Amino acid sequence: MKKKINIAVLGTGFMGKAHSNGWMKVAKFFDVPFEPVLKVAFGTERDDTEEFAQKWGFSETAYDWAQVMERDDIDIVDIVAPTKVHKDMVVKAARCGKAVFCEKPAALSYAEAVEMAAAVKQAGVLSYLNHNYRRVPAVAFAKKMIEEGRLGTLYEWRGAYLQDWIMDPEFPLTWHFKRDLARGGPLWDLSSHSVDLARYLIGEVKSVMAIQKTFIEERPLPGKGAATFTAGKGATGETGKVEVDDASFMITEFENGVLGSFDTSRFAGGRKNYNYFEIYGSKGSLAWNFERMNELQYLNMEDPADEQGFRNIMVTNSTHPYAGAWWAPGHVVGYEHAFVHAMADFLHAYETGGTIDPNMEDGVKIIQVLEAALKSSDEERKVRVAEIK
Amino acid sequence: MKKKINIAVLGTGFMGKAHSNGWMKVAKFFDVPFEPVLKVAFGTERDDTEEFAQKWGFSETAYDWAQVMERDDIDIVDIVAPTKVHKDMVVKAARCGKAVFCEKPAALSYAEAVEMAAAVKQAGVLSYLNHNYRRVPAVAFAKKMIEEGRLGTLYEWRGAYLQDWIMDPEFPLTWHFKRDLARGGPLWDLSSHSVDLARYLIGEVKSVMAIQKTFIEERPLPGKGAATFTAGKGATGETGKVEVDDASFMITEFENGVLGSFDTSRFAGGRKNYNYFEIYGSKGSLAWNFERMNELQYLNMEDPADEQGFRNIMVTNSTHPYAGAWWAPGHVVGYEHAFVHAMADFLHAYETGGTIDPNMEDGVKIIQVLEAALKSSDEERKVRVAEIK
Amino acid sequence: MKKKINIAVLGTGFMGKAHSNGWMKVAKFFDVPFEPVLKVAFGTERDDTEEFAQKWGFSETAYDWAQVMERDDIDIVDIVAPTKVHKDMVVKAARCGKAVFCEKPAALSYAEAVEMAAAVKQAGVLSYLNHNYRRVPAVAFAKKMIEEGRLGTLYEWRGAYLQDWIMDPEFPLTWHFKRDLARGGPLWDLSSHSVDLARYLIGEVKSVMAIQKTFIEERPLPGKGAATFTAGKGATGETGKVEVDDASFMITEFENGVLGSFDTSRFAGGRKNYNYFEIYGSKGSLAWNFERMNELQYLNMEDPADEQGFRNIMVTNSTHPYAGAWWAPGHVVGYEHAFVHAMADFLHAYETGGTIDPNMEDGVKIIQVLEAALKSSDEERKVRVAEIK
Amino acid sequence: MKKKINIAVLGTGFMGKAHSNGWMKVAKFFDVPFEPVLKVAFGTERDDTEEFAQKWGFSETAYDWAQVMERDDIDIVDIVAPTKVHKDMVVKAARCGKAVFCEKPAALSYAEAVEMAAAVKQAGVLSYLNHNYRRVPAVAFAKKMIEEGRLGTLYEWRGAYLQDWIMDPEFPLTWHFKRDLARGGPLWDLSSHSVDLARYLIGEVKSVMAIQKTFIEERPLPGKGAATFTAGKGATGETGKVEVDDASFMITEFENGVLGSFDTSRFAGGRKNYNYFEIYGSKGSLAWNFERMNELQYLNMEDPADEQGFRNIMVTNSTHPYAGAWWAPGHVVGYEHAFVHAMADFLHAYETGGTIDPNMEDGVKIIQVLEAALKSSDEERKVRVAEIK
Repeated sequence: MKKKINIAVLGTGFMGKAHSNGWMKVAKFFDVPFEPVLKVAFGTERDDTEEFAQKWGFSETAYDWAQVMERDDIDIVDIVAPTKVHKDMVVKAARCGKAVFCEKPAALSYAEAVEMAAAVKQAGVLSYLNHNYRRVPAVAFAKKMIEEGRLGTLYEWRGAYLQDWIMDPEFPLTWHFKRDLARGGPLWDLSSHSVDLARYLIGEVKSVMAIQKTFIEERPLPGKGAATFTAGKGATGETGKVEVDDASFMITEFENGVLGSFDTSRFAGGRKNYNYFEIYGSKGSLAWNFERMNELQYLNMEDPADEQGFRNIMVTNSTHPYAGAWWAPGHVVGYEHAFVHAMADFLHAYETGGTIDPNMEDGVKIIQVLEAALKSSDEERKVRVAEIK
Repeated sequence: MKKKINIAVLGTGFMGKAHSNGWMKVAKFFDVPFEPVLKVAFGTERDDTEEFAQKWGFSETAYDWAQVMERDDIDIVDIVAPTKVHKDMVVKAARCGKAVFCEKPAALSYAEAVEMAAAVKQAGVLSYLNHNYRRVPAVAFAKKMIEEGRLGTLYEWRGAYLQDWIMDPEFPLTWHFKRDLARGGPLWDLSSHSVDLARYLIGEVKSVMAIQKTFIEERPLPGKGAATFTAGKGATGETGKVEVDDASFMITEFENGVLGSFDTSRFAGGRKNYNYFEIYGSKGSLAWNFERMNELQYLNMEDPADEQGFRNIMVTNSTHPYAGAWWAPGHVVGYEHAFVHAMADFLHAYETGGTIDPNMEDGVKIIQVLEAALKSSDEERKVRVAEIK
Repeated sequence: MKKKINIAVLGTGFMGKAHSNGWMKVAKFFDVPFEPVLKVAFGTERDDTEEFAQKWGFSETAYDWAQVMERDDIDIVDIVAPTKVHKDMVVKAARCGKAVFCEKPAALSYAEAVEMAAAVKQAGVLSYLNHNYRRVPAVAFAKKMIEEGRLGTLYEWRGAYLQDWIMDPEFPLTWHFKRDLARGGPLWDLSSHSVDLARYLIGEVKSVMAIQKTFIEERPLPGKGAATFTAGKGATGETGKVEVDDASFMITEFENGVLGSFDTSRFAGGRKNYNYFEIYGSKGSLAWNFERMNELQYLNMEDPADEQGFRNIMVTNSTHPYAGAWWAPGHVVGYEHAFVHAMADFLHAYETGGTIDPNMEDGVKIIQVLEAALKSSDEERKVRVAEIK
Repeated sequence: MKKKINIAVLGTGFMGKAHSNGWMKVAKFFDVPFEPVLKVAFGTERDDTEEFAQKWGFSETAYDWAQVMERDDIDIVDIVAPTKVHKDMVVKAARCGKAVFCEKPAALSYAEAVEMAAAVKQAGVLSYLNHNYRRVPAVAFAKKMIEEGRLGTLYEWRGAYLQDWIMDPEFPLTWHFKRDLARGGPLWDLSSHSVDLARYLIGEVKSVMAIQKTFIEERPLPGKGAATFTAGKGATGETGKVEVDDASFMITEFENGVLGSFDTSRFAGGRKNYNYFEIYGSKGSLAWNFERMNELQYLNMEDPADEQGFRNIMVTNSTHPYAGAWWAPGHVVGYEHAFVHAMADFLHAYETGGTIDPNMEDGVKIIQVLEAALKSSDEERKVRVAEIK
């Protein structure tokens, strides 16, 4: 019998569901050293929290997160609460000696991220920041190819993260549009993922130029239920000011000389979760799109010239990263599987006392790049990432 | 608290895993009237069965399936055992008054399928045959569009189901190649799915012409472990005769005048689980490929002529069939999700005393078409499906 | 200065234009031994013919084709007249000692095709049948790869040729629907191309099973101008019977054991000129679609398993067949270019006394397969191609 | 009989061929008011020029371009000579009262472009700058849709122009790498096209941020024949410095508030002539890629939400821009066709005394944006296009 490991999940929304599902599945599909137990569900609204806890089989509910962290019987704190409370929660969890599994983006500012990383470091606890796309099999396989030198010297990164869910001007002014709650729009929410992937696959970003746009400057104030993202729902007739970007385009230099671009937008009609990248190197090229997450495009420049072409690799073989745990070749996996992969790696790191990436240190670096982009947009000049301190 | 419903899963292989996962998840994502309980796992090899049962949280293991069916505390019998035992198991389960959830293909022959359907009918129990692809959201959405008349009069069905996992001549002579265990090759295994989809989306098949090919006629006899599908593993040096098709191409007329084609093969290099169809009608066209299961291609002939083109619909909206239960638009689902959808529908039918499709009656119709194809191939003539009795 | 070679073009329609354009261009882009001269344009309607001749720079017009063929100053007879006159024209041209460049399909029947081939053979003149798709660079490159053994043992051919231009029931009853003028519908018009490609790439067809459908059985009689393919134009209010197939699906065995399918239809909404094939062999797979004619999909099974995927090869390198004569890599060519390629090869064959494929002998074989398909459809049984005599 | 119009083509290379082909074809496919006559071919190398002239049927050759322009019997001067001589040639041609058809990019600098535009304006002659991609049917159709308001308010432009022909470090130091001959690398050569398309489809660029990279800083000095772009050909063993960018990424604001990105590179393995854009607006989205030039991706946000998807429109209908002049739906055209379209429009403008776009005024605006990008890259700040004077 496996050892049990107790988890507190802090948050009951979309991400609470995705994380609980992951903890439920990880020991079924991966040979992990623990059997995760969904011990405590923390929420802010009582009815939702009770329902959530019952559905997912949590033993208990709780409404004071700090107290949860102080319990001796909690091993892992899984933070899926709003970004604005990440810092306080991570710092507290670290001080309580808990392993921290935290949803992205790390924080609302560089200062917060630094504080979180310091707390985790000082406490010596395991931390993980859930930039889940790293563990999509196709992306992990891309990483493997790059590390094996299959792309040669890297030249360019072309990233994009496009969605369209707020294009309706009647979509209400939810927290996503407020600077103090979200810090940024797609720059913060989506480019944080792209920057994570770029750091993972390419290396550190050295300098940034960015331009931001807000296309719809006023939106209806939300009524109750606006968080469900239904345009016009509960509208009160009043409007408020959008304080973040609707789209942000950024170009970068990496420390290793690679040239990069990052286009992100929530105003790209037809793009639902279009997390995309192209990588070009001296020996090959790669392209990936989350909407076809099981496929990796690969061009091998060492193939005979007349036979070169982007290969559409189905990354579903048992020998591809993570894929063997699931079904059979061609039996594609979906969005939530990458969460399970992260949990498997997290549990292994917990057992061995190792680390896992990305973690709070990575969070610092990612937020630093985003801050640099904000500064570049404001000051209309190239900003070195190291300027952000 | 939901009522509990007890399930016995008969089989511990790939499909045992897929089904157990489904039962585990269904009440988490769908508003079903029951909480499924994995009560008994039946297997033939003790070690595998114990490990399987423990991993998935079954309360018990069992090694006599008939006895399991006679237990009063089992509500649903989920059959994921080899096809050759489907008939006996389904008949017994029906006689024991159990609801039957049975993996495809229904049976090894038309006679068996008829017997199964009769038993289920006589017992008045709920039955379901797991042609899972019907409940992929994109396919269910295709059905909805057709039912709403969006395609107008239907003209053609072009189906294909292509794989490549046995192309290596050293791949051993597993049960898949034996007539008494598998009845057919891809015709039985894969075209059964295609025929199910065609009956679902188009209608009944009236007549069939078919040609079959076996490209590799002798294969190494398998040693232990051959079932893991690893070429050459455990080879003994001896070879045996392949008794089924490696590829089968079939053309059909449907009762409603539609013209159909069904190409299936396990010798289609690069196709991993390429379950594909195109449908053409007077008002529109559809195309779908399981390898991109979240997408449906749709051509609306009522769009202005110069603006017509196959639309690539991401079938991941909350308003698309089944999709709202999962994540968010563009957050794609995978292979196993369709199993969960079937279980949700099954539990609702169980509660209401309704039916679910496809069921054992559908199994009869599907096997009848496959038998007609075998007969056509043997007799080198067009065979009316009604000739199979 | 190159030698001049005099050409008579017999026909002034869509194909007259495509051929004249080809003759105009061939010596500009290819190093051919002759400078083609557009000497005589033959037509049946005087105004059209004069206009056509003037536009394309023909020296003369003519209204008696037999007389044209008897002229000493004509070297090449280019037949772009309706299929029903192909036989008489080819036989006469051969008897007059002219090199024959003839549009497809060869003839209305096997008997006609045999007579044409015999006439050409007896006269010892060069003949070419314009199944133009062979000389699309991507197709010629596919041929090269197959000949070099890159696909290993061939297993399957999956061909399709789909269009949608007559789906409107008000599209008038033009010659395309009359048995004595067209012999067949898409079977004759489009599958003749597919069969040509299959014979080129795979080998001879041995036996055939086919089903045909006519979806719209009566159509308005055309008024003047119906030939312009505009639905309803000039409709008289009367209707007549459609005598040919609207769609024909066919499955085949090839002499070399390959299994084949050929789906053709003019009722496939959204498919404009979808001439498609997939080829599967023991070492690799190919796929091609005319609508993306510059691309060839190639799967190399000798790539490492985890890196296999269909490569999308842009067949536009200077080292790809024919492609070097045109622009630069990635600078795609179009429909008419394959005509120029055929003319270049034709002029070389004319100079050297060699042959070119496909020719009238190939026409016999192609028509024989189509006749077998008709017979199979009528007699509802598998028909050996050799039965057609 | 049409009036003849005499053309002098100045240059005999790749573009000389493309332009001569266009003049040869334009009156065959379009109803233009003139019959173009290839009167004089100007070149610098005698053998090449004579061969070129003979092949394309020029009446004469010439080796003094200024003299050619002074001839009374030349109506149109078609400049396909290196960019560095564009200014002198255009100014002279204008002064001689000739209509000017000039290959892109307009000039090596903003100052040159201004001088060219002024000369043309003062002389009152027709001018055209051959940014050919505007007249690809799919692009012209995109323009039509935008003008009709089908995209609503425009939000984003995502452009890219990627090639890979100089990735080999042994590719010699041809004129393409010298600042005084080419001014820039892909920024000048390729982004000039992208900027032209963006101005055509979106509007004027207001400000620019750019980063440039040179990945290979030294290259072998070319021997004779290096211009043929064959790596290593004629290498002398010496190397020289690359003076231009290998890749340039740029982000922009447009006057109308649209946010833009332009990525260009000659180091994008597998991209041959990947001239790509995406456009997002409040009512719809478009995407286009030259490598599939006959297709336009269109997303209509006014379709029912569950049926939305990028439509792949084959822009080959007779009712699509320019397409009706060629073949039939689905019968795709190629690279050179857009040249013919430009010539057709040019001849109409010549006849009517009208104008055609893009012209020398557009050249000024395009070069101004490119200069702003250079300045931004140098000064590491956002540069307003209006700063370039």
